[in-house]
Amino acid sequence: MSAEPRLLANAIRALAMDAVEAANSGHPGMPMGMADVATILFTEYLKYDPADPKWHDRDRFVLSAGHGSMLIYALLHLTGYERPTMEDIRNFRQLGSPCAGHPENFLLDGVEATTGPLGQGFAMAVGMAIAERHLNAVFGGDLVDHHTWVIAGDGCLMEGINHEAVGLAGHLKLGRLNVLWDDNRITIDGSTDLSTSEDILARYAASGWHTVACDGHDYDSIRKALDEAKADPRPSLVACRTIIGYGAPNKQGTSATHGAALGKDEVAAARQHLVWDSEPFDLPQPIIDGWREAGRRGQKAHQDWRVRLAAHPEREEFVRRMEGRLPEGFSLRDHIAGLIAEPQNVASRKASELALGAINDLLPETIGGSADLTGSNNTKTKAQKPLTAEDYSGRYIYYGIREFGMAAAMNGMALHGGVIPYGGTFLVFADYCRPAIRLSALQEVRAVYVMTHDSIGLGEDGPTHQPVEHVMSLRMIPNLDVFRPADAVETAECWELALKRKDGPSLLALSRQNLPQLRDNARENLSAKGAYRLRAAKATRKVILIATGSEVEVAVQVADALEGKGIGADIVSMPCWTLFEAQDAAYRNDILPDVSPNEILRVSIEAGTTLGWERYTMVHGLRIGLDRFGASAPAEDLFKRFGFTAEAIVPQIEAALQKRN
Amino acid sequence: MSAEPRLLANAIRALAMDAVEAANSGHPGMPMGMADVATILFTEYLKYDPADPKWHDRDRFVLSAGHGSMLIYALLHLTGYERPTMEDIRNFRQLGSPCAGHPENFLLDGVEATTGPLGQGFAMAVGMAIAERHLNAVFGGDLVDHHTWVIAGDGCLMEGINHEAVGLAGHLKLGRLNVLWDDNRITIDGSTDLSTSEDILARYAASGWHTVACDGHDYDSIRKALDEAKADPRPSLVACRTIIGYGAPNKQGTSATHGAALGKDEVAAARQHLVWDSEPFDLPQPIIDGWREAGRRGQKAHQDWRVRLAAHPEREEFVRRMEGRLPEGFSLRDHIAGLIAEPQNVASRKASELALGAINDLLPETIGGSADLTGSNNTKTKAQKPLTAEDYSGRYIYYGIREFGMAAAMNGMALHGGVIPYGGTFLVFADYCRPAIRLSALQEVRAVYVMTHDSIGLGEDGPTHQPVEHVMSLRMIPNLDVFRPADAVETAECWELALKRKDGPSLLALSRQNLPQLRDNARENLSAKGAYRLRAAKATRKVILIATGSEVEVAVQVADALEGKGIGADIVSMPCWTLFEAQDAAYRNDILPDVSPNEILRVSIEAGTTLGWERYTMVHGLRIGLDRFGASAPAEDLFKRFGFTAEAIVPQIEAALQKRN
Repeated sequence: MSAEPRLLANAIRALAMDAVEAANSGHPGMPMGMADVATILFTEYLKYDPADPKWHDRDRFVLSAGHGSMLIYALLHLTGYERPTMEDIRNFRQLGSPCAGHPENFLLDGVEATTGPLGQGFAMAVGMAIAERHLNAVFGGDLVDHHTWVIAGDGCLMEGINHEAVGLAGHLKLGRLNVLWDDNRITIDGSTDLSTSEDILARYAASGWHTVACDGHDYDSIRKALDEAKADPRPSLVACRTIIGYGAPNKQGTSATHGAALGKDEVAAARQHLVWDSEPFDLPQPIIDGWREAGRRGQKAHQDWRVRLAAHPEREEFVRRMEGRLPEGFSLRDHIAGLIAEPQNVASRKASELALGAINDLLPETIGGSADLTGSNNTKTKAQKPLTAEDYSGRYIYYGIREFGMAAAMNGMALHGGVIPYGGTFLVFADYCRPAIRLSALQEVRAVYVMTHDSIGLGEDGPTHQPVEHVMSLRMIPNLDVFRPADAVETAECWELALKRKDGPSLLALSRQNLPQLRDNARENLSAKGAYRLRAAKATRKVILIATGSEVEVAVQVADALEGKGIGADIVSMPCWTLFEAQDAAYRNDILPDVSPNEILRVSIEAGTTLGWERYTMVHGLRIGLDRFGASAPAEDLFKRFGFTAEAIVPQIEAALQKRN
Repeated sequence: MSAEPRLLANAIRALAMDAVEAANSGHPGMPMGMADVATILFTEYLKYDPADPKWHDRDRFVLSAGHGSMLIYALLHLTGYERPTMEDIRNFRQLGSPCAGHPENFLLDGVEATTGPLGQGFAMAVGMAIAERHLNAVFGGDLVDHHTWVIAGDGCLMEGINHEAVGLAGHLKLGRLNVLWDDNRITIDGSTDLSTSEDILARYAASGWHTVACDGHDYDSIRKALDEAKADPRPSLVACRTIIGYGAPNKQGTSATHGAALGKDEVAAARQHLVWDSEPFDLPQPIIDGWREAGRRGQKAHQDWRVRLAAHPEREEFVRRMEGRLPEGFSLRDHIAGLIAEPQNVASRKASELALGAINDLLPETIGGSADLTGSNNTKTKAQKPLTAEDYSGRYIYYGIREFGMAAAMNGMALHGGVIPYGGTFLVFADYCRPAIRLSALQEVRAVYVMTHDSIGLGEDGPTHQPVEHVMSLRMIPNLDVFRPADAVETAECWELALKRKDGPSLLALSRQNLPQLRDNARENLSAKGAYRLRAAKATRKVILIATGSEVEVAVQVADALEGKGIGADIVSMPCWTLFEAQDAAYRNDILPDVSPNEILRVSIEAGTTLGWERYTMVHGLRIGLDRFGASAPAEDLFKRFGFTAEAIVPQIEAALQKRN
């Protein structure tokens, strides 16, 4: 290295102070405190090539303490990534700059994950490390042989999800995962003593981790710890004892440096203290040169890898998977044709298992799992063997009772690439992993959530287990496709759509109870329209019934009863709102004509909150739903008790029609 | 004890098998495995009096592994609680029986908390133990001197929230909290080896807990461990090594006993194995007598306590607090009058702090806190000193970066009674504690969530920190009042409503940015109506603007612009949907007349998802909102970018009016 680490690190400090100062917003303390550790990592350990940020065998680096975003922006700029430019950094936290308040994977190459919601970066890194070991087992070390590095703060370690991530990584012996903990003993509220007394290293050791401590401002101490971490076959936690805001002489070591600009005077004092003469956003050429030299460290390894890849017999398959392309012509039409030939009156969770049977054969890149509800979620197909510490080539993960950790790991796997993760739990526990589902959507990753027991239809387990508000509240997460299929055919169609979608997550809400197969044709994937007319009115159309999932069956019974009274009723199955909203106006108007409720009454039937259904029924339509918590009883009793029967619904429709005429 | 523990325990086993068998649904494994431990606890250790289930100084017992609900139903019945009757138990998991699938605090006295969502019972018990120590510090040991006991399973310990609960309890040295862990090494998917390799006792020790193990089927071993746990000044984890489904000879020790009826043959085999001759739901008289005798154990302690209470100088205040009654005539009218006299153009988070200044003086029972965002959430008032292991009389808790643990602890405190908990985090992190917010609502407890930084208005932190879908998705949780106040007056009004509400939680969504005070009168609490006309149209009314929180200011600007063009516009501020929906039809129709959009155009303005607003704007109205993730930039830039300005909104209204005419 031609430039001293201290000088290189001070470049990070200067950029962090200056950018936060210019924005008058941001977090200088963490980048300044961890600058030394990050410098050693990026100049001596991390395997990467700024010229090809997507190099498949690069080490993954996750800044789990995402509020310290200026650290990664400085590192990417200094090591020679195309972006961020210095102009981008000058516009830190301004509209249009890729240097957002928190690092966003969709704004900058080199940002492997969107971080900021604490604990999730760490947990996603666990997923990345799983994907690495799996692909290593499948394709061999010539193609896949890299590490996953994390910088995490006290917040990441204190969040509940950390326990799940640590447990999973320890159990799976993910030795290539190395976490550098910014042990600065400061949180926003003040000293960590205010809220915690934990012996963190002991906790990690209890879960099978290797732990080591270093002085985060002493380069040899850092190197020794990183060497040890890299060598140890267990996942490693490196406690880096640092001073938050290191270099700001009057504020360092206090929470005052955490989340606010240092202020003009303190920045000046820090410049003096660090003997840093350059103007803001200006860097001495030798320091730029030193960083760029470090940035070129990985070129040779990258070239060697390219040579190995070119000669590898499984080259095309490997690249296909890493680029997230499905095999040419992938579809579930054969499976669906089988369902048409031999209808399956099964729970949609069972229909999902049937679809997965086909999927897991067609797509070797799927990795399934469940948060300890394998037999209930029907997520494991016969051919899947478990992914374990002894055999990473398996394609099924027993995640344990760790919904949030599972979802975050799925995000990490999807971000790593080369695999398509799906994972199951009960729909009501979507709440337990909702922050990770949101990050799936924000990060635009293909993760598939298999959420079963999707309404009061689960019966006896009662209100704690009965999702009432969940389906609707998930529909509100931007870029998440929520599917609630009505039968085995729709379930397969929704699975196909979820898999074909590259730029975002999907969630399948599936029934515990059996459902009749309603579809008798599958010339096209009708679920792709989001909503479609399952059956047209026979008598003059007076009513459109709009239902989802298990309530489509109820809609059929209601329609039958209405038609028996000479009242024509369309049945619209609406498995996915977002896809329906993406159709053109002509299609939407064909399914739901924009006419007065006096002409056609729209009725929604969904065993969940009615709030939101006004969008399709219009306020003067009728909404059959459940705006209270459920109860414990057999499903059939609950459907009766809460009015999800033709007997209960038909009179309401008749009354509404009466009123109008 | 006149009857042997083994016989008493077998009564639990019999009732558990029989009830699950009758329902053909439920979880026999846990009650059968933990029957011995529970018998010792309820016959020798736990302080309670079935004749007065609400005795304020009773020990609290939480069945965190709520799926084993038959354990608590059996215990309550056997020890002589009025309910459940044997008939209730026969109707286990049937509509109308208080013996629901999972224990529900609102269905049975003696069920201290609703459990089932794993990990939360344990975490609520931490809150109960905090409340106990706090009230002990305030009122003395003569009135408050009890323990909190928990039975938890592997799931409770594996969930992320466990880490938060353990950390909090260890830090606060809650020595009166004793957790009995059902260490049966089985989860739903099979052996715990499938998913975990953790040394659980070591992890607890690392967080300052006392740990001890026992043989969960050996009474002396259990007693020794419980004695030790009770004596140790630290919170205790008692690892009870048990065999799941103990007594079912062919299935015990396997996950087959976890969540399904044993089946007729295995029940018969178990009866034989346990030498239990009685018919289903029939108990031998000596065993009933033995249990009832145990149930009377607490009578003397209860009577002694009543004598002490009667003589206590703070008797009335103590009972008032424990019964959850606010002081006579509690209101914030003086505080609000002050705001009218001297308007405060402050962020609503700051307005909340101002209100709390008054509240914390008027209500000595409040205990505030924040998940490490004290200065941002403005949750701490000057007079509050911290509640710490050294001084439990404090009224402010530094919860650390533990949103979920905080919310669950708040539930536990509220369930314990005697305190009113409130706690803060960023609104976007409502997702992190959403499962506990749901349980606040289901359990009907008074917990107040102070959620600040409530829209893109928080600015630079970007999409990970900007709640878009949160306010609407929280509105869907049954029995939760979501408040989004527009100014300092509304903020105080909403606080008053939240505190006066005894039967459910409230959530305040508060701004980071400053807001003008719009209200100039406070003759009544207008927020109590849920929505009200802040300003009536001056010109002929053509438009009703409906806005919440920070967007009410925008609505005022829009109305001004419209009136300038001769278009009359009402401004409706709608801080709380549920309260508006509770008003009578006449009031609702006065605020939002049910007329054609051609006559009056309704426009909602809220910087969040539009899904749901159709309820008030009607489909043909106009919805100004944000149906995508936000971005990182100063708030003002974002409001412009996303169209929350009069300049952007007025033309849309004009176009809509044009189209109609």
